[in-house]
Amino acid sequence: MTKPLILVTNDDSIDARGIKFLVSIMNDFGEVIVVAPDSPQSGMGHAITVGDKLSLVKSDIFGDIESYKCSGTPADCVKIAKHHILKNKKIDLIVSGINHGSNSSISVLYSGTMSAAIEGAIENIPSIGFSICDYDPNAYLKHSKPFIKMVIENALKNGIPESIALNVNIPSISDEKIKGFKICKQANAVWEEKFDKRIDPYGREYFWMYGNLVNNDKGQDNDEWAIKNNYVSIVPCKFNLSSNKGTDYLKEKWKF
Amino acid sequence: MTKPLILVTNDDSIDARGIKFLVSIMNDFGEVIVVAPDSPQSGMGHAITVGDKLSLVKSDIFGDIESYKCSGTPADCVKIAKHHILKNKKIDLIVSGINHGSNSSISVLYSGTMSAAIEGAIENIPSIGFSICDYDPNAYLKHSKPFIKMVIENALKNGIPESIALNVNIPSISDEKIKGFKICKQANAVWEEKFDKRIDPYGREYFWMYGNLVNNDKGQDNDEWAIKNNYVSIVPCKFNLSSNKGTDYLKEKWKF
Repeated sequence: MTKPLILVTNDDSIDARGIKFLVSIMNDFGEVIVVAPDSPQSGMGHAITVGDKLSLVKSDIFGDIESYKCSGTPADCVKIAKHHILKNKKIDLIVSGINHGSNSSISVLYSGTMSAAIEGAIENIPSIGFSICDYDPNAYLKHSKPFIKMVIENALKNGIPESIALNVNIPSISDEKIKGFKICKQANAVWEEKFDKRIDPYGREYFWMYGNLVNNDKGQDNDEWAIKNNYVSIVPCKFNLSSNKGTDYLKEKWKF
Repeated sequence: MTKPLILVTNDDSIDARGIKFLVSIMNDFGEVIVVAPDSPQSGMGHAITVGDKLSLVKSDIFGDIESYKCSGTPADCVKIAKHHILKNKKIDLIVSGINHGSNSSISVLYSGTMSAAIEGAIENIPSIGFSICDYDPNAYLKHSKPFIKMVIENALKNGIPESIALNVNIPSISDEKIKGFKICKQANAVWEEKFDKRIDPYGREYFWMYGNLVNNDKGQDNDEWAIKNNYVSIVPCKFNLSSNKGTDYLKEKWKF
Protein backbone atom coordinates (compact mmCIF):
# COMPACT_ATOMS: atom_id res chain seq x y z
CA MET A 1 0.00 0.00 0.00
CA THR A 2 1.24 3.48 -0.83
CA LYS A 3 2.10 5.55 2.20
CA PRO A 4 -0.10 8.62 2.72
CA LEU A 5 1.43 11.93 1.64
CA ILE A 6 1.44 14.28 4.61
CA LEU A 7 2.15 18.01 4.46
CA VAL A 8 3.44 19.54 7.69
CA THR A 9 3.39 23.28 8.32
CA ASN A 10 3.11 25.69 11.26
CA ASP A 11 3.17 29.35 12.17
CA ASP A 12 6.07 29.49 14.61
CA SER A 13 8.52 29.01 11.68
CA ILE A 14 10.42 26.04 10.35
CA ASP A 15 12.98 26.06 13.17
CA ALA A 16 10.47 25.97 16.07
CA ARG A 17 10.58 22.99 18.43
CA GLY A 18 6.88 22.26 17.87
CA ILE A 19 7.17 21.48 14.16
CA LYS A 20 10.27 19.34 14.74
CA PHE A 21 8.31 17.28 17.25
CA LEU A 22 5.30 17.00 14.91
CA VAL A 23 7.48 15.97 11.95
CA SER A 24 9.03 13.20 14.04
CA ILE A 25 5.57 11.83 14.86
CA MET A 26 4.22 12.14 11.32
CA ASN A 27 7.22 10.31 9.91
CA ASP A 28 5.77 7.07 11.33
CA PHE A 29 2.52 7.59 9.41
CA GLY A 30 3.54 8.38 5.86
CA GLU A 31 5.68 10.28 3.41
CA VAL A 32 6.26 13.69 4.96
CA ILE A 33 6.93 16.98 3.20
CA VAL A 34 7.45 20.20 5.14
CA VAL A 35 6.58 23.67 3.86
CA ALA A 36 6.76 26.19 6.68
CA PRO A 37 7.36 29.92 7.18
CA ASP A 38 10.95 31.13 7.34
CA SER A 39 10.06 33.49 10.24
CA PRO A 40 7.52 33.50 13.10
CA GLN A 41 3.95 34.15 11.92
CA SER A 42 2.00 34.01 15.17
CA GLY A 43 -1.26 35.93 15.07
CA MET A 44 -1.21 36.09 11.28
CA GLY A 45 -4.72 34.66 11.06
CA HIS A 46 -5.75 33.85 7.51
CA ALA A 47 -3.42 36.44 5.97
CA ILE A 48 -2.05 35.74 2.50
CA THR A 49 0.59 37.55 0.47
CA VAL A 50 -1.18 39.84 -1.99
CA GLY A 51 0.72 42.04 -4.40
CA ASP A 52 4.15 41.07 -3.13
CA LYS A 53 6.61 38.33 -4.06
CA LEU A 54 7.23 35.10 -2.19
CA SER A 55 10.47 33.23 -1.72
CA LEU A 56 10.65 29.46 -1.39
CA VAL A 57 13.97 27.85 -0.47
CA LYS A 58 14.86 24.19 0.13
CA SER A 59 15.91 23.43 3.68
CA ASP A 60 17.94 20.54 5.11
CA ILE A 61 16.68 21.17 8.62
CA PHE A 62 14.86 17.81 8.69
CA GLY A 63 17.63 15.75 7.04
CA ASP A 64 16.18 13.39 4.43
CA ILE A 65 12.66 14.81 4.69
CA GLU A 66 11.85 17.12 1.76
CA SER A 67 11.50 20.56 3.35
CA TYR A 68 11.01 24.13 2.21
CA LYS A 69 10.97 27.46 3.99
CA CYS A 70 8.71 30.13 2.57
CA SER A 71 8.71 33.89 3.16
CA GLY A 72 4.91 33.91 3.30
CA THR A 73 2.19 33.23 5.85
CA PRO A 74 0.99 29.79 6.98
CA ALA A 75 -1.91 29.98 4.47
CA ASP A 76 0.61 30.86 1.73
CA CYS A 77 2.65 27.77 2.67
CA VAL A 78 -0.37 25.53 2.09
CA LYS A 79 -1.18 27.28 -1.20
CA ILE A 80 2.37 26.99 -2.59
CA ALA A 81 2.63 23.37 -1.42
CA LYS A 82 -0.68 22.41 -3.04
CA HIS A 83 -0.49 24.45 -6.26
CA HIS A 84 3.25 24.51 -6.95
CA ILE A 85 5.43 21.97 -5.11
CA LEU A 86 2.90 19.11 -5.06
CA LYS A 87 0.64 20.17 -7.89
CA ASN A 88 0.63 16.74 -9.53
CA LYS A 89 0.21 14.79 -6.30
CA LYS A 90 -2.67 14.12 -3.94
CA ILE A 91 -2.02 15.37 -0.41
CA ASP A 92 -3.69 12.93 2.00
CA LEU A 93 -3.36 14.96 5.18
CA ILE A 94 -2.20 18.37 6.34
CA VAL A 95 -1.02 18.86 9.91
CA SER A 96 -0.12 22.26 11.30
CA GLY A 97 1.79 22.92 14.52
CA ILE A 98 2.46 22.00 17.17
CA ASN A 99 1.74 25.59 18.03
CA HIS A 100 3.43 27.01 21.08
CA GLY A 101 0.31 28.36 22.78
CA SER A 102 -3.40 27.65 22.90
CA ASN A 103 -5.59 28.25 19.85
CA SER A 104 -8.85 27.52 21.60
CA SER A 105 -12.09 29.50 21.41
CA ILE A 106 -11.88 32.83 19.53
CA SER A 107 -8.10 32.46 19.05
CA VAL A 108 -8.89 30.15 16.14
CA LEU A 109 -9.48 33.31 14.06
CA TYR A 110 -6.12 34.91 14.95
CA SER A 111 -4.14 31.72 14.63
CA GLY A 112 -1.77 31.13 11.74
CA THR A 113 -1.60 27.46 12.75
CA MET A 114 -5.35 26.99 12.37
CA SER A 115 -5.56 29.15 9.25
CA ALA A 116 -3.12 26.79 7.55
CA ALA A 117 -5.41 23.89 8.51
CA ILE A 118 -8.50 25.76 7.35
CA GLU A 119 -6.76 26.57 4.06
CA GLY A 120 -6.25 22.81 3.69
CA ALA A 121 -9.95 22.20 4.30
CA ILE A 122 -10.82 24.83 1.66
CA GLU A 123 -8.69 22.77 -0.72
CA ASN A 124 -10.65 19.69 0.32
CA ILE A 125 -7.70 18.07 2.10
CA PRO A 126 -8.20 16.52 5.58
CA SER A 127 -6.46 19.02 7.85
CA ILE A 128 -5.66 19.32 11.54
CA GLY A 129 -4.08 22.07 13.63
CA PHE A 130 -2.35 21.03 16.87
CA SER A 131 -1.57 23.43 19.71
CA ILE A 132 -0.05 22.95 23.13
CA CYS A 133 -1.56 25.22 25.79
CA ASP A 134 1.78 26.69 26.84
CA TYR A 135 3.24 29.79 25.18
CA ASP A 136 6.80 28.95 26.27
CA PRO A 137 8.90 28.08 23.18
CA ASN A 138 10.66 25.58 25.47
CA ALA A 139 7.39 24.02 26.65
CA TYR A 140 7.31 20.32 27.46
CA LEU A 141 5.83 18.51 24.45
CA LYS A 142 6.33 14.78 24.95
CA HIS A 143 3.13 14.17 26.90
CA SER A 144 1.17 15.19 23.79
CA LYS A 145 2.57 12.41 21.57
CA PRO A 146 0.08 9.59 22.34
CA PHE A 147 -2.82 12.01 21.86
CA ILE A 148 -1.51 13.33 18.55
CA LYS A 149 -1.01 9.74 17.38
CA MET A 150 -4.60 8.82 18.28
CA VAL A 151 -5.92 11.82 16.34
CA ILE A 152 -3.80 10.98 13.28
CA GLU A 153 -4.81 7.30 13.37
CA ASN A 154 -8.46 8.31 13.45
CA ALA A 155 -8.03 10.92 10.72
CA LEU A 156 -6.33 8.43 8.38
CA LYS A 157 -8.65 5.50 9.17
CA ASN A 158 -12.04 7.12 9.87
CA GLY A 159 -11.64 10.38 7.97
CA ILE A 160 -12.59 14.01 8.48
CA PRO A 161 -15.76 15.34 6.80
CA GLU A 162 -15.33 17.54 3.74
CA SER A 163 -14.81 21.28 4.38
CA ILE A 164 -13.93 20.71 8.06
CA ALA A 165 -10.58 21.36 9.76
CA LEU A 166 -9.91 20.11 13.27
CA ASN A 167 -8.67 22.43 16.01
CA VAL A 168 -6.88 20.25 18.55
CA ASN A 169 -5.64 21.84 21.79
CA ILE A 170 -3.59 19.82 24.23
CA PRO A 171 -3.30 20.88 27.90
CA SER A 172 0.19 21.71 29.07
CA ILE A 173 1.96 19.34 31.41
CA SER A 174 0.59 19.33 34.93
CA ASP A 175 0.48 17.10 37.98
CA GLU A 176 -2.89 15.80 36.85
CA LYS A 177 -2.88 13.38 33.95
CA ILE A 178 -4.75 14.24 30.75
CA LYS A 179 -8.15 12.55 31.01
CA GLY A 180 -8.79 11.94 27.30
CA PHE A 181 -10.54 13.75 24.46
CA LYS A 182 -13.58 16.04 24.26
CA ILE A 183 -15.11 16.71 20.87
CA CYS A 184 -16.60 20.11 21.52
CA LYS A 185 -17.54 23.55 20.24
CA GLN A 186 -15.63 26.82 20.12
CA ALA A 187 -16.17 28.59 23.45
CA ASN A 188 -17.87 31.96 23.44
CA ALA A 189 -14.84 33.91 24.64
CA VAL A 190 -13.19 37.22 23.82
CA TRP A 191 -9.76 38.76 24.34
CA GLU A 192 -9.98 41.81 26.58
CA GLU A 193 -7.12 43.92 25.32
CA LYS A 194 -5.02 46.47 27.08
CA PHE A 195 -2.66 48.94 25.45
CA ASP A 196 0.50 49.76 27.37
CA LYS A 197 1.78 53.14 26.19
CA ARG A 198 5.55 53.75 26.09
CA ILE A 199 7.72 56.58 24.81
CA ASP A 200 10.71 55.74 22.62
CA PRO A 201 14.08 57.55 22.94
CA TYR A 202 12.94 59.94 20.16
CA GLY A 203 9.89 61.02 22.18
CA ARG A 204 7.39 59.10 20.08
CA GLU A 205 4.52 57.11 21.58
CA TYR A 206 4.16 53.42 20.90
CA PHE A 207 1.95 50.68 22.35
CA TRP A 208 2.17 47.06 23.41
CA MET A 209 -1.12 45.24 22.97
CA TYR A 210 -1.74 42.45 25.46
CA GLY A 211 -4.78 40.97 27.09
CA ASN A 212 -6.67 38.27 28.87
CA LEU A 213 -9.08 35.79 27.43
CA VAL A 214 -12.50 36.22 29.02
CA ASN A 215 -14.63 33.09 28.75
CA ASN A 216 -18.32 34.01 28.67
CA ASP A 217 -19.33 30.41 28.04
CA LYS A 218 -20.81 28.74 31.09
CA GLY A 219 -21.38 25.37 29.42
CA GLN A 220 -19.32 22.18 29.61
CA ASP A 221 -19.41 21.45 25.88
CA ASN A 222 -16.76 23.97 24.78
CA ASP A 223 -13.01 23.89 24.29
CA GLU A 224 -12.15 26.25 27.16
CA TRP A 225 -13.98 24.01 29.61
CA ALA A 226 -12.35 20.90 28.17
CA ILE A 227 -8.80 22.22 28.43
CA LYS A 228 -9.35 23.64 31.91
CA ASN A 229 -10.57 20.22 32.98
CA ASN A 230 -7.52 18.52 31.48
CA TYR A 231 -9.02 17.10 28.34
CA VAL A 232 -7.61 17.39 24.82
CA SER A 233 -10.20 19.50 22.95
CA ILE A 234 -11.14 18.81 19.35
CA VAL A 235 -13.30 21.44 17.63
CA PRO A 236 -14.40 20.63 14.08
CA CYS A 237 -14.26 24.00 12.26
CA LYS A 238 -15.99 25.12 9.09
CA PHE A 239 -15.03 28.05 6.87
CA ASN A 240 -18.44 29.03 5.54
CA LEU A 241 -19.30 31.92 7.85
CA SER A 242 -22.90 32.36 6.61
CA SER A 243 -25.33 32.71 9.50
CA ASN A 244 -28.87 31.41 9.06
CA LYS A 245 -29.92 33.33 12.15
CA GLY A 246 -28.54 36.53 10.61
CA THR A 247 -30.19 35.85 7.26
CA ASP A 248 -33.60 35.19 8.83
CA TYR A 249 -33.33 38.35 10.93
CA LEU A 250 -32.46 40.61 8.00
CA LYS A 251 -35.14 39.09 5.75
CA GLU A 252 -37.74 39.75 8.46
CA LYS A 253 -36.67 43.10 9.87
CA TRP A 254 -34.84 45.05 7.18
CA LYS A 255 -36.69 47.19 4.64
CA PHE A 256 -35.28 48.00 1.23
CA MET B 1 -31.12 62.67 20.55
CA THR B 2 -27.42 61.86 20.73
CA LYS B 3 -25.87 61.10 17.39
CA PRO B 4 -24.62 57.53 17.00
CA LEU B 5 -20.85 57.07 17.38
CA ILE B 6 -19.51 55.46 14.23
CA LEU B 7 -16.02 53.98 13.84
CA VAL B 8 -14.72 53.84 10.27
CA THR B 9 -11.79 51.65 9.26
CA ASN B 10 -10.53 49.77 6.21
CA ASP B 11 -7.65 47.69 4.92
CA ASP B 12 -6.50 49.75 1.94
CA SER B 13 -5.01 52.35 4.35
CA ILE B 14 -6.20 55.71 5.60
CA ASP B 15 -5.39 57.50 2.33
CA ALA B 16 -7.36 55.18 0.04
CA ARG B 17 -10.23 56.67 -1.97
CA GLY B 18 -12.67 54.08 -0.61
CA ILE B 19 -12.43 55.16 3.02
CA LYS B 20 -12.68 58.84 2.06
CA PHE B 21 -15.90 58.08 0.23
CA LEU B 22 -17.26 56.02 3.13
CA VAL B 23 -16.38 58.70 5.71
CA SER B 24 -18.26 61.30 3.65
CA ILE B 25 -21.38 59.11 3.69
CA MET B 26 -21.13 58.23 7.38
CA ASN B 27 -20.77 61.86 8.34
CA ASP B 28 -24.48 62.29 7.59
CA PHE B 29 -25.41 59.55 10.06
CA GLY B 30 -23.51 60.34 13.23
CA GLU B 31 -20.31 61.30 14.98
CA VAL B 32 -17.50 59.71 12.99
CA ILE B 33 -14.09 58.63 14.21
CA VAL B 34 -11.55 57.07 11.88
CA VAL B 35 -8.89 54.56 12.93
CA ALA B 36 -7.28 53.01 9.88
CA PRO B 37 -4.00 51.36 8.89
CA ASP B 38 -1.11 53.64 7.87
CA SER B 39 -0.22 51.28 4.99
CA PRO B 40 -2.12 48.88 2.71
CA GLN B 41 -3.23 45.70 4.51
CA SER B 42 -5.04 43.84 1.74
CA GLY B 43 -5.14 40.09 2.26
CA MET B 44 -4.23 40.44 5.94
CA GLY B 45 -7.23 38.37 7.01
CA HIS B 46 -7.74 38.34 10.75
CA ALA B 47 -4.06 39.00 11.51
CA ILE B 48 -3.23 40.89 14.70
CA THR B 49 0.07 42.28 15.95
CA VAL B 50 1.51 39.82 18.45
CA GLY B 51 4.80 40.42 20.21
CA ASP B 52 5.56 43.66 18.38
CA LYS B 53 4.80 47.29 19.10
CA LEU B 54 2.08 49.40 17.47
CA SER B 55 2.16 53.05 16.58
CA LEU B 56 -0.92 55.26 16.61
CA VAL B 57 -0.67 58.79 15.22
CA LYS B 58 -3.34 61.49 14.85
CA SER B 59 -4.11 62.40 11.26
CA ASP B 60 -5.69 65.52 9.78
CA ILE B 61 -6.54 63.76 6.54
CA PHE B 62 -10.28 64.13 7.20
CA GLY B 63 -10.21 67.72 8.48
CA ASP B 64 -12.39 68.12 11.56
CA ILE B 65 -13.15 64.42 11.85
CA GLU B 66 -11.07 62.77 14.62
CA SER B 67 -8.76 60.40 12.78
CA TYR B 68 -5.83 58.14 13.62
CA LYS B 69 -3.46 56.07 11.54
CA CYS B 70 -2.17 52.86 13.08
CA SER B 71 0.80 50.71 12.10
CA GLY B 72 -1.22 47.55 12.72
CA THR B 73 -3.71 45.42 10.87
CA PRO B 74 -7.42 46.22 10.37
CA ALA B 75 -8.30 43.99 13.37
CA ASP B 76 -5.68 45.87 15.44
CA CYS B 77 -7.35 49.16 14.45
CA VAL B 78 -10.67 47.98 15.85
CA LYS B 79 -9.01 46.70 19.03
CA ILE B 80 -7.08 49.93 19.70
CA ALA B 81 -10.16 52.04 18.91
CA LYS B 82 -12.38 50.03 21.25
CA HIS B 83 -9.96 49.38 24.12
CA HIS B 84 -7.80 52.51 24.05
CA ILE B 85 -9.10 55.53 22.09
CA LEU B 86 -12.82 55.01 22.84
CA LYS B 87 -12.57 52.88 25.96
CA ASN B 88 -15.05 54.97 27.89
CA LYS B 89 -17.55 55.34 25.06
CA LYS B 90 -20.09 53.06 23.40
CA ILE B 91 -19.43 52.54 19.71
CA ASP B 92 -22.80 52.25 17.95
CA LEU B 93 -21.59 51.05 14.57
CA ILE B 94 -18.39 50.00 12.84
CA VAL B 95 -18.08 50.31 9.08
CA SER B 96 -15.08 49.00 7.18
CA GLY B 97 -14.15 49.86 3.60
CA ILE B 98 -15.10 50.64 0.98
CA ASN B 99 -12.68 47.97 -0.09
CA HIS B 100 -11.22 48.25 -3.56
CA GLY B 101 -12.09 44.74 -4.74
CA SER B 102 -14.68 42.06 -4.04
CA ASN B 103 -14.73 40.24 -0.69
CA SER B 104 -17.41 37.79 -1.68
CA SER B 105 -17.48 34.03 -1.03
CA ILE B 106 -14.24 32.56 0.39
CA SER B 107 -12.44 35.93 0.15
CA VAL B 108 -14.19 36.88 3.39
CA LEU B 109 -11.48 34.87 5.18
CA TYR B 110 -8.56 36.63 3.48
CA SER B 111 -10.08 40.09 3.73
CA GLY B 112 -8.73 42.67 6.14
CA THR B 113 -11.87 44.74 5.51
CA MET B 114 -14.16 41.97 6.68
CA SER B 115 -11.86 40.92 9.53
CA ALA B 116 -12.19 44.43 10.97
CA ALA B 117 -15.98 44.06 10.79
CA ILE B 118 -15.84 40.58 12.34
CA GLU B 119 -13.59 41.93 15.11
CA GLY B 120 -16.34 44.47 15.77
CA ALA B 121 -18.94 41.69 15.98
CA ILE B 122 -16.70 39.81 18.44
CA GLU B 123 -16.79 42.98 20.57
CA ASN B 124 -20.57 42.95 20.27
CA ILE B 125 -20.73 46.09 18.12
CA PRO B 126 -22.96 46.14 14.99
CA SER B 127 -20.41 45.95 12.15
CA ILE B 128 -20.48 46.04 8.37
CA GLY B 129 -17.79 45.60 5.72
CA PHE B 130 -18.38 47.24 2.33
CA SER B 131 -16.56 46.26 -0.84
CA ILE B 132 -16.83 47.39 -4.41
CA CYS B 133 -16.28 44.62 -6.96
CA ASP B 134 -13.51 46.45 -8.81
CA TYR B 135 -9.85 46.13 -7.81
CA ASP B 136 -8.87 49.41 -9.50
CA PRO B 137 -7.87 51.96 -6.82
CA ASN B 138 -9.47 54.55 -9.13
CA ALA B 139 -12.71 52.58 -9.47
CA TYR B 140 -15.97 54.48 -9.84
CA LEU B 141 -17.64 54.59 -6.42
CA LYS B 142 -20.56 57.02 -6.59
CA HIS B 143 -23.16 54.50 -7.82
CA SER B 144 -22.71 52.65 -4.49
CA LYS B 145 -23.82 55.59 -2.32
CA PRO B 146 -27.61 55.01 -2.25
CA PHE B 147 -27.07 51.34 -1.47
CA ILE B 148 -24.62 52.04 1.35
CA LYS B 149 -27.08 54.57 2.77
CA MET B 150 -29.92 52.04 2.70
CA VAL B 151 -27.77 49.50 4.54
CA ILE B 152 -26.72 52.03 7.19
CA GLU B 153 -30.31 53.22 7.69
CA ASN B 154 -31.43 49.65 8.25
CA ALA B 155 -28.50 48.84 10.54
CA LEU B 156 -29.18 51.88 12.75
CA LYS B 157 -32.97 51.51 12.74
CA ASN B 158 -33.58 47.76 12.57
CA GLY B 159 -30.31 46.44 14.00
CA ILE B 160 -27.92 43.60 13.31
CA PRO B 161 -28.18 40.44 15.45
CA GLU B 162 -25.51 39.91 18.09
CA SER B 163 -22.28 38.18 16.98
CA ILE B 164 -23.02 38.83 13.29
CA ALA B 165 -21.05 41.05 10.87
CA LEU B 166 -22.44 41.93 7.46
CA ASN B 167 -20.40 41.35 4.29
CA VAL B 168 -21.76 43.77 1.67
CA ASN B 169 -20.44 43.55 -1.89
CA ILE B 170 -21.51 46.10 -4.47
CA PRO B 171 -21.21 45.35 -8.19
CA SER B 172 -18.89 47.65 -10.13
CA ILE B 173 -20.37 50.17 -12.50
CA SER B 174 -21.82 48.67 -15.66
CA ASP B 175 -24.33 49.48 -18.38
CA GLU B 176 -26.95 47.55 -16.46
CA LYS B 177 -28.36 49.22 -13.36
CA ILE B 178 -28.01 47.53 -9.97
CA LYS B 179 -31.26 45.63 -9.36
CA GLY B 180 -31.36 45.87 -5.57
CA PHE B 181 -30.23 43.70 -2.65
CA LYS B 182 -29.92 39.96 -2.08
CA ILE B 183 -29.49 38.70 1.47
CA CYS B 184 -27.61 35.52 0.76
CA LYS B 185 -25.02 32.97 1.82
CA GLN B 186 -21.29 32.74 1.22
CA ALA B 187 -20.79 30.95 -2.10
CA ASN B 188 -18.89 27.68 -2.11
CA ALA B 189 -15.94 28.97 -4.11
CA VAL B 190 -12.17 28.58 -4.01
CA TRP B 191 -9.20 30.49 -5.36
CA GLU B 192 -7.25 28.38 -7.83
CA GLU B 193 -3.74 29.69 -7.39
CA LYS B 194 -0.87 29.83 -9.82
CA PHE B 195 2.74 30.58 -8.95
CA ASP B 196 4.70 32.53 -11.55
CA LYS B 197 8.40 31.83 -11.02
CA ARG B 198 10.91 34.62 -11.75
CA ILE B 199 14.65 34.99 -11.23
CA ASP B 200 15.97 38.14 -9.60
CA PRO B 201 19.18 39.89 -10.78
CA TYR B 202 21.10 37.92 -8.13
CA GLY B 203 20.00 34.58 -9.58
CA ARG B 204 17.50 33.82 -6.83
CA GLU B 205 14.04 32.40 -7.48
CA TYR B 206 10.95 34.20 -6.36
CA PHE B 207 7.24 33.77 -7.02
CA TRP B 208 4.16 35.83 -7.71
CA MET B 209 1.02 34.18 -6.45
CA TYR B 210 -2.12 34.95 -8.46
CA GLY B 211 -5.27 33.10 -9.28
CA ASN B 212 -8.86 32.82 -10.34
CA LEU B 213 -11.90 32.36 -8.18
CA VAL B 214 -13.67 29.14 -9.10
CA ASN B 215 -17.32 29.14 -8.06
CA ASN B 216 -18.50 25.59 -7.35
CA ASP B 217 -21.87 26.83 -6.14
CA LYS B 218 -24.64 26.21 -8.63
CA GLY B 219 -27.39 27.80 -6.54
CA GLN B 220 -28.97 31.26 -6.78
CA ASP B 221 -28.87 31.98 -3.05
CA ASN B 222 -25.17 32.88 -2.80
CA ASP B 223 -23.16 36.09 -3.07
CA GLU B 224 -21.32 35.17 -6.28
CA TRP B 225 -24.62 34.63 -8.07
CA ALA B 226 -26.05 37.86 -6.66
CA ILE B 227 -23.11 40.02 -7.75
CA LYS B 228 -22.94 38.39 -11.19
CA ASN B 229 -26.63 39.17 -11.62
CA ASN B 230 -26.10 42.79 -10.59
CA TYR B 231 -27.44 42.69 -7.07
CA VAL B 232 -25.75 44.07 -3.97
CA SER B 233 -25.02 40.98 -1.86
CA ILE B 234 -25.35 40.97 1.93
CA VAL B 235 -23.99 37.93 3.74
CA PRO B 236 -24.55 37.84 7.53
CA CYS B 237 -21.33 36.27 8.89
CA LYS B 238 -20.68 34.59 12.22
CA PHE B 239 -17.31 33.96 13.87
CA ASN B 240 -18.05 30.76 15.74
CA LEU B 241 -16.58 28.19 13.36
CA SER B 242 -17.87 25.12 15.23
CA SER B 243 -19.44 22.61 12.86
CA ASN B 244 -22.30 20.47 14.14
CA LYS B 245 -21.88 18.18 11.13
CA GLY B 246 -18.22 17.72 11.99
CA THR B 247 -18.99 17.10 15.67
CA ASP B 248 -21.64 14.48 14.88
CA TYR B 249 -19.32 12.73 12.44
CA LEU B 250 -16.41 12.51 14.88
CA LYS B 251 -18.62 11.37 17.75
CA GLU B 252 -20.01 8.60 15.58
CA LYS B 253 -16.97 7.43 13.63
CA TRP B 254 -13.86 8.17 15.67
CA LYS B 255 -12.56 5.71 18.27
CA PHE B 256 -10.47 6.79 21.23
